[in-house]
Amino acid sequence: MKQFISVDDVPGVPRLVETALGYKQDPFRDKTLGVNKTLGMIFLNPSLRTRLSTQVAARNLGMEVVVFNIDKEGWALEMNDGAIMSGSTTEHVKEAAAVMGQYFDILSIRTFPGLKNKEEDYTEKYINQFIKYAGVPVVSLESATLHPLQSLTDVITIKERWQQPRKPKVVMTWAPHVKALPQAVPNSFAQWINAWGEADFVITHPKGYELDKKFTGNAPIEYNQDKALEGADFVYVKNWSSYSDYGNIISTDSSWMMSNQKLQHTNEAKVMHCLPVRRNVVIADEVLDGPQSIVIPEAGNRVWAAQAVLSEILKQQQR
Amino acid sequence: MKQFISVDDVPGVPRLVETALGYKQDPFRDKTLGVNKTLGMIFLNPSLRTRLSTQVAARNLGMEVVVFNIDKEGWALEMNDGAIMSGSTTEHVKEAAAVMGQYFDILSIRTFPGLKNKEEDYTEKYINQFIKYAGVPVVSLESATLHPLQSLTDVITIKERWQQPRKPKVVMTWAPHVKALPQAVPNSFAQWINAWGEADFVITHPKGYELDKKFTGNAPIEYNQDKALEGADFVYVKNWSSYSDYGNIISTDSSWMMSNQKLQHTNEAKVMHCLPVRRNVVIADEVLDGPQSIVIPEAGNRVWAAQAVLSEILKQQQR
Amino acid sequence: MKQFISVDDVPGVPRLVETALGYKQDPFRDKTLGVNKTLGMIFLNPSLRTRLSTQVAARNLGMEVVVFNIDKEGWALEMNDGAIMSGSTTEHVKEAAAVMGQYFDILSIRTFPGLKNKEEDYTEKYINQFIKYAGVPVVSLESATLHPLQSLTDVITIKERWQQPRKPKVVMTWAPHVKALPQAVPNSFAQWINAWGEADFVITHPKGYELDKKFTGNAPIEYNQDKALEGADFVYVKNWSSYSDYGNIISTDSSWMMSNQKLQHTNEAKVMHCLPVRRNVVIADEVLDGPQSIVIPEAGNRVWAAQAVLSEILKQQQR
Repeated sequence: MKQFISVDDVPGVPRLVETALGYKQDPFRDKTLGVNKTLGMIFLNPSLRTRLSTQVAARNLGMEVVVFNIDKEGWALEMNDGAIMSGSTTEHVKEAAAVMGQYFDILSIRTFPGLKNKEEDYTEKYINQFIKYAGVPVVSLESATLHPLQSLTDVITIKERWQQPRKPKVVMTWAPHVKALPQAVPNSFAQWINAWGEADFVITHPKGYELDKKFTGNAPIEYNQDKALEGADFVYVKNWSSYSDYGNIISTDSSWMMSNQKLQHTNEAKVMHCLPVRRNVVIADEVLDGPQSIVIPEAGNRVWAAQAVLSEILKQQQR
Repeated sequence: MKQFISVDDVPGVPRLVETALGYKQDPFRDKTLGVNKTLGMIFLNPSLRTRLSTQVAARNLGMEVVVFNIDKEGWALEMNDGAIMSGSTTEHVKEAAAVMGQYFDILSIRTFPGLKNKEEDYTEKYINQFIKYAGVPVVSLESATLHPLQSLTDVITIKERWQQPRKPKVVMTWAPHVKALPQAVPNSFAQWINAWGEADFVITHPKGYELDKKFTGNAPIEYNQDKALEGADFVYVKNWSSYSDYGNIISTDSSWMMSNQKLQHTNEAKVMHCLPVRRNVVIADEVLDGPQSIVIPEAGNRVWAAQAVLSEILKQQQR
Repeated sequence: MKQFISVDDVPGVPRLVETALGYKQDPFRDKTLGVNKTLGMIFLNPSLRTRLSTQVAARNLGMEVVVFNIDKEGWALEMNDGAIMSGSTTEHVKEAAAVMGQYFDILSIRTFPGLKNKEEDYTEKYINQFIKYAGVPVVSLESATLHPLQSLTDVITIKERWQQPRKPKVVMTWAPHVKALPQAVPNSFAQWINAWGEADFVITHPKGYELDKKFTGNAPIEYNQDKALEGADFVYVKNWSSYSDYGNIISTDSSWMMSNQKLQHTNEAKVMHCLPVRRNVVIADEVLDGPQSIVIPEAGNRVWAAQAVLSEILKQQQR
């Protein structure tokens, strides 16, 4: 694996899932793989799980880690080619990325979308500039439209809990929120579940919240949440802002909040969320505090996802 | 030791002091004890000594360290159970603590009191929420009402300097300050000196600055500073805001500032302070720059206190 | 080497350059030199290259690294002796530096000039207070008037690219900028090129931008940029604010921006800059994106410069 920006970078999802579950069994089995290699972790936006779990994963492989909050500890980057830099940006990504490529063996980066300009966000302008100039493998810690470390984690979490011969029914449901959020997590979840191919996948949301078909593919959309939840084995709850009416909130319908009543439609479904979750807005306390929630072990699996990804890139570099 | 929140978590203070002094003699004698273990250090408030010394201590034991300024690098946490999270908090401590418990073997955290609500502060609501949900041992890097790593350091610092058969006279004296400060350091110092039992302990402050008896116990209070200082072997200087008139400044009497003239009442007392100290407000330059100040080696001992605490918890986990 | 504040701390520049180039060939040849030693990296100002490259360098030597953004993660320091600290500063450098000296084997620090008070900046008041009180070797990560890690890097970068028997002609040229910048980089470059002695060195800038002779020595100043560039083998581009009209911008003449047209005067000169660089203000895109720019490998060499410096101090400590 030469980079990790989307599922398209992964030669085989099932094999990567197996690698991750192997690390979960034996975290330190490749403790020397990353010795004398350094992972740079660059944050243009806040992070909790990604920040912490990826550090642990890299150290499990013996890698050095350097964390850099470029917005707070550095300065504003210019992303536009040809810019006359007489304004508020201090350094061009051409230099910043290339220089970090001199220091790190793998460069990982988190950058959120502006949610103002669909074209700019959906061409992944920011992370692509880093990829173009870094000269070393780039790992996404969440980009404008995708969050592949989260999605790999989610597949791992479903896989390790599903032993039956039939495919599980996985329902991704929109839920309300007070802020306009990116589509990165739902885009990415859809893309990975489709690529994995081992689930019956349904998406449910109010009309107007359709995601980019590039990621959802042939996954059926059911606008009736109760109907979508029928027989579900896993329910993936997430808010996102509109893709068509780009970056806007077009529903705050609280009846879409996940509750125990909603779960009664399901096949005792396990409830997943990428976190952070706003309690009693997105998911009710009764669900998060109940036996069907698996959000904490799901977050725990972030370590093994990151470790699998880093290990594949390190192995590629050794060749 | 299963956690380190107050002296009540410590099976025996003298033994822990010996462990710390052992590390001071030979910092790397347990260099492999913490291998493949990770300490998470979570800051909700600024820190210098605690932040730096604890990192050094953990690495001396071979532990990995991940530092996270959750307020600056993450987001605001919700601490109230049952909250409908439609406001400014992004993640509930139930998730944040539990997730960090998935990544770290020991979770350490700094959280200051609001000094607005005595009940909330004195029930240690914040750190107790972390303890409740983390699922791993929690170490206080200073909480609303206590600062046990500082107090253990202070006992170590007195112990290593006192060779006489009689008990030393230790006087904790209030001093003026320009801001309303927590009672955590003086509460904790009183609690530890009492539990240690190897000192004659006197507290002096203006009327109205009485601390919670839960921590000071039977320690005599002398309202005349000069009289309290008579024959003191160690003088512990510290400002705090009022406990009874909660969180307020009720005296700015500059005659309480520690000076050489004040020290003349003592038995050539050594002068201690947890730092940071506002020079010429809390303690005069002539004292801090003079031969009786031991504030720098006191701060140096923070490493050995933290190392002793972490080592005891690691040993407990090995059982 | 007992500290690294200016070229005056270096017993021999050529030998230090050789040490650095040796590490570039074999980064891990002294992997155990820094084991059980800790480097503290204290930032009072933002940093990208220095922050990241020095961490990598220290780890290459097996050192532990603790990074501390004292302004953001700590509090404001008092630098004035005798201050009555009833204002906005929370801790005196006397304590802060001495305490950090208790925790770290080497203390490195970045502190920019205020550009208001020439006397205060040019006596290097801030870093000298740290040196005075730390009690351990201090390494400058850029101070008010000098940036020696950058300058050592620059000498390395010239040295490794120059194989001819004659001395290379090195021209340092002022360039326009939108903000008033320190003189640290040009002062330091001049000081190091002079001390190195293996280049023909010329400085060019508009009148009024003369640097402190203490650093530039006998280097000729040519006010005609085109004439200065004639036959140059290396062009070092940098903006700085006025030294005589202290801290002010006295020219914004865009004709001083480095361009391909300007480079035609040179001997196919390599173009250097310490970065960050404002594109199309200081240097044109056509130069930075062209074959004569060596700013990225120059930045890459920061690792080997830092590693050479740290190794020399560690070796000194072993004696």
